[in-house]
Amino acid sequence: LNRIKASGLKLRFCTNETQATREKFVKKLQGMGFDISVAEVTAPAPAACRILKERSLRPHLLVHNDLVPEFAEIDKANPNCVVIGDAAENFTYANLNEAFRVLIGMEKPVLISLGRGRYYKETDGLKLDVGAYMKALEYACDVQAEVVGKPAKTFFESALAEMGVSPQQAIMIGDDIVNDVGGAQRCGMRALQVRTGKYRSVHTLHPALR
Amino acid sequence: LNRIKASGLKLRFCTNETQATREKFVKKLQGMGFDISVAEVTAPAPAACRILKERSLRPHLLVHNDLVPEFAEIDKANPNCVVIGDAAENFTYANLNEAFRVLIGMEKPVLISLGRGRYYKETDGLKLDVGAYMKALEYACDVQAEVVGKPAKTFFESALAEMGVSPQQAIMIGDDIVNDVGGAQRCGMRALQVRTGKYRSVHTLHPALR
Repeated sequence: LNRIKASGLKLRFCTNETQATREKFVKKLQGMGFDISVAEVTAPAPAACRILKERSLRPHLLVHNDLVPEFAEIDKANPNCVVIGDAAENFTYANLNEAFRVLIGMEKPVLISLGRGRYYKETDGLKLDVGAYMKALEYACDVQAEVVGKPAKTFFESALAEMGVSPQQAIMIGDDIVNDVGGAQRCGMRALQVRTGKYRSVHTLHPALR
Repeated sequence: LNRIKASGLKLRFCTNETQATREKFVKKLQGMGFDISVAEVTAPAPAACRILKERSLRPHLLVHNDLVPEFAEIDKANPNCVVIGDAAENFTYANLNEAFRVLIGMEKPVLISLGRGRYYKETDGLKLDVGAYMKALEYACDVQAEVVGKPAKTFFESALAEMGVSPQQAIMIGDDIVNDVGGAQRCGMRALQVRTGKYRSVHTLHPALR
């Protein structure tokens, strides 16, 4: 990372983190010794905010409390779409019904999902990720969610636009063959898989090719 | 109903009710003046119990509290499948994660769903039905649920077996073009749609034909 920065190459950190603001995320990485600032981070919530503004959408939020500040500047009165993230403890029966009612009340329901993960591991065990709840709302409302975040093409395009470079000029470095490598390649970028983090040897082949 | 009974024809009441035991369901209908007994009711929970026994499955239950007594005789220790019904207030974040962990911990996850409804209306508004939560678990575990209840073929077959008649000898009477009429017809029965209950004129065509 330090060598990339020293070389003068443009750089973005692309994360699917939706349980915390970029500020919190960056502070955590800085604490680990990484040279990183908020302005260098591409994350699903700001990407969603861009879409909301472009299309004059006013979201009903079903997200983690710690993510709400990312939507501070967005008009949320009289919602005409639902934004779902990994809401964790906020995934209550009442909150899910409320989000559903907002969606089903629309002539053409708009559901924006900050990721499509199935599940993840925490210290106290496996947890359902946002993708599962996205599927529940998709089925109930007979609608297809627009997914923001890796591996969505629009997410990589945002990062490229922020750097002002074309896909051909960029390389994605990550440990996830689907979300990092596959997503970037589908966007016309080259990609490099590191053999650290969640990497396992079985992961060198994209699931679609196994 | 009284004329069918007086004629000596065999009769079953087929319901997708999964928020109460058959006892409670029957008491409600008796209170409305219907001549009905528990032994005449085919419902998803007993149908699921039959499957559980046949295949030596021990369920982890994610169902409404009032439905639990239907599973009283079923061994639930060391579960090797998950049974999901319309659990309503029991659809908590913790309970969903727990059901998910049981499923994902199996070599070949078995998910049995007491219906596939999308949503329904109660006095305090629309609620997500069991189908939405079924989809969430299906997606998270990459598994397909086995649906018990109308319009599943096995459900109508259970009712026929209980009466000891073939599909050709039976007629289904109901107000729902998909769950009652379509399900029965796919099972080889004839079916009659009443123009009462949830019937609307648009419902005379099955959605697949609209």
